[in-house]
Amino acid sequence: MSTDVPTDVSDGSAAGLPAGHAFEAFDMRVVEVEGADWAMEMDVTPRVVNSSGVLQGGLMATLVDMVAGVALLRGEAPYERGSTSELQISYLDGARVGPVVARAHVLRRGRRSAVVRVEVHDRGADDLHVATATLTFAVRRAAEPGS
Amino acid sequence: MSTDVPTDVSDGSAAGLPAGHAFEAFDMRVVEVEGADWAMEMDVTPRVVNSSGVLQGGLMATLVDMVAGVALLRGEAPYERGSTSELQISYLDGARVGPVVARAHVLRRGRRSAVVRVEVHDRGADDLHVATATLTFAVRRAAEPGS
Amino acid sequence: MSTDVPTDVSDGSAAGLPAGHAFEAFDMRVVEVEGADWAMEMDVTPRVVNSSGVLQGGLMATLVDMVAGVALLRGEAPYERGSTSELQISYLDGARVGPVVARAHVLRRGRRSAVVRVEVHDRGADDLHVATATLTFAVRRAAEPGS
Amino acid sequence: MSTDVPTDVSDGSAAGLPAGHAFEAFDMRVVEVEGADWAMEMDVTPRVVNSSGVLQGGLMATLVDMVAGVALLRGEAPYERGSTSELQISYLDGARVGPVVARAHVLRRGRRSAVVRVEVHDRGADDLHVATATLTFAVRRAAEPGS
Repeated sequence: MSTDVPTDVSDGSAAGLPAGHAFEAFDMRVVEVEGADWAMEMDVTPRVVNSSGVLQGGLMATLVDMVAGVALLRGEAPYERGSTSELQISYLDGARVGPVVARAHVLRRGRRSAVVRVEVHDRGADDLHVATATLTFAVRRAAEPGS
Repeated sequence: MSTDVPTDVSDGSAAGLPAGHAFEAFDMRVVEVEGADWAMEMDVTPRVVNSSGVLQGGLMATLVDMVAGVALLRGEAPYERGSTSELQISYLDGARVGPVVARAHVLRRGRRSAVVRVEVHDRGADDLHVATATLTFAVRRAAEPGS
Repeated sequence: MSTDVPTDVSDGSAAGLPAGHAFEAFDMRVVEVEGADWAMEMDVTPRVVNSSGVLQGGLMATLVDMVAGVALLRGEAPYERGSTSELQISYLDGARVGPVVARAHVLRRGRRSAVVRVEVHDRGADDLHVATATLTFAVRRAAEPGS
Repeated sequence: MSTDVPTDVSDGSAAGLPAGHAFEAFDMRVVEVEGADWAMEMDVTPRVVNSSGVLQGGLMATLVDMVAGVALLRGEAPYERGSTSELQISYLDGARVGPVVARAHVLRRGRRSAVVRVEVHDRGADDLHVATATLTFAVRRAAEPGS
C-alpha cells in the first residue's frame, strides 16, 4: 500500500491529495543520504505528536511505510508496483525534537517480494536512534510478461 | 506512545487536538464488541486512503496502535501508563469499503510489559479480515510504589 | 522452509532424518484440535530446555514454524510447496511443564503467499498461553500452470 | 530465554548439555567480527538442514536467539540476566553452503528491555545475506538494587 503514494509526495508537497487528507499534517521532504536507497525527513510538529509531545508511533510507522515503498520504485531495478504485506517496527526512543530522518535500505529484491529496512533518527536530538523497522512488500516488475 | 492519546479520543471526537492534527482525518468511534477488550470503528474516507482507494497501511497501523493502547488503560486491572515498544502488522487484504472495525485482545498483562493482539475487519465488505497485528507495550501500574 | 519437513514428521517419528539431526531431540506428535487447521504436541524434556528449565525459545520457534508449514500442505485447498519468509513470535510465559500444544490457523490463503497464526499453550500448566506467532510463507499450488 | 545458554556454549562445545540435547546437532563456534557486539559461526550439516538441503528456518532462529542473548551478557554494560520477549526474522535466501555467520548488534540498552539486530550471511556462498532479525529482551542488570 505504501507505494501507492501520490506521485508528488516525493517532492514533499501534498499536492494531489484530497482536501483534509491525513498526510497534509506531515511536513516532509526528500533528502539525500549517502548509502541509503531512499530517505525522507519529517518535522516533529504539534500536528503529529501525542499528548507526551513525541511523534505518535502510528504516524511514524506511516512515514516508514512510505519511505520503504518509494525506495522500491526508484533506483536500479525499480518495481512498477508494490504493496506492503508486513510491517514490523521497534520503537527505541521517543522522537521529541526533530526533524526525524527515515532511511530505507532494500535488503532483498525478489521477483515477487522485497524486504526493506528503515532506520529512523532524531536529527535534532544528536541523531538519536528512535526506531528500526523491517517491511515486506508484494511487488511487480514492469517488464514481467504474463503476470 | 499509543496510549498517550487525548482523553477524548475514546468518544470519537477530535476535541483537544491541536488544529490540523493528523488525527482530524480519522472518522472513528468506540464500538462495543463482545469478547474484545476494546474496539473502535473507522470510516474509509478519501482522507485516509491511498491512490488505490484502500485504507493507507500506515494509517491502519495508527488505528491499531491506538486501539491496543486504550485497551490497556481500561477494564480490569488497567495500567496507568503505556508506550508502544513493538508493532507487527500483517496486511491480509485491502480495506476498500469500510467502516473497518479494530478489535483489541490483551494477551499478556505483565508488571512491566503487555502484549495485545488487534484484528481488523472491513464491515462493509462482508467482514473481510484485512489485517492482524501484535503489539508490545512498556507499561506502568498506578499503584506500583517506587517505580 | 518449514514445509520441507520429512513426510513422516506428521506421525511424530523421526524416521527419515539423518542420524543425529536436531529434530531427534523433539518428542512430538500430531493431535486433533477442534477449530485448528493443524496442531502438534511436544514434550518439555531435558533435551529441549535451557538452563532455566523452560523450553528454549528458538526450539519453540522451530516447532511453530513446522506446525504452520504443515498446516498449509493439508486440508482444503492445500499448497504443493511453501517456504517461510517471515516469522514473528511473542513469548508470553515460560513453558516449564509440558506437553505444549501448538495450534495453527491459516489467516490468508493467497495465490503466492499465505499467513498463519500459531498459538502455543502449556497443557501441563493449566493451559498457560506461552507464545503467539504470525508467519508468512511464499507458496505454490500444485495446479498452477506456468509458474 | 536465549541468554540462559550453557556457559560453555561460547567456546563452541556442547559440554554441560544433557545427553541428546538438540543443541548437540549445532556445530558452532565464536568468531571475532569487527563492529559486531557478538558473532558466531555455524556449519550447514545434514543434522540441521531440511529436506531441501538448506538450514532449517527454526534452527536458524535458534542460532539468532542465542547470539543475540549472549551479546547482551558481554561487552560494555553487560546485563546479568535476559529472556527473549520478541523475535522477528525475515528469511531472505536459503543457507545452503555454510558456514553461516550470525552477527549481533545491540540497538538499545534500556534498564528493563534491550533490542538486538542479528544479520546472518552464508560465508560459503559469497557472503549471501540469508536472514535479518530483530529481537527484544526483558533484561536485568547485576547492580540494580531492589529489583
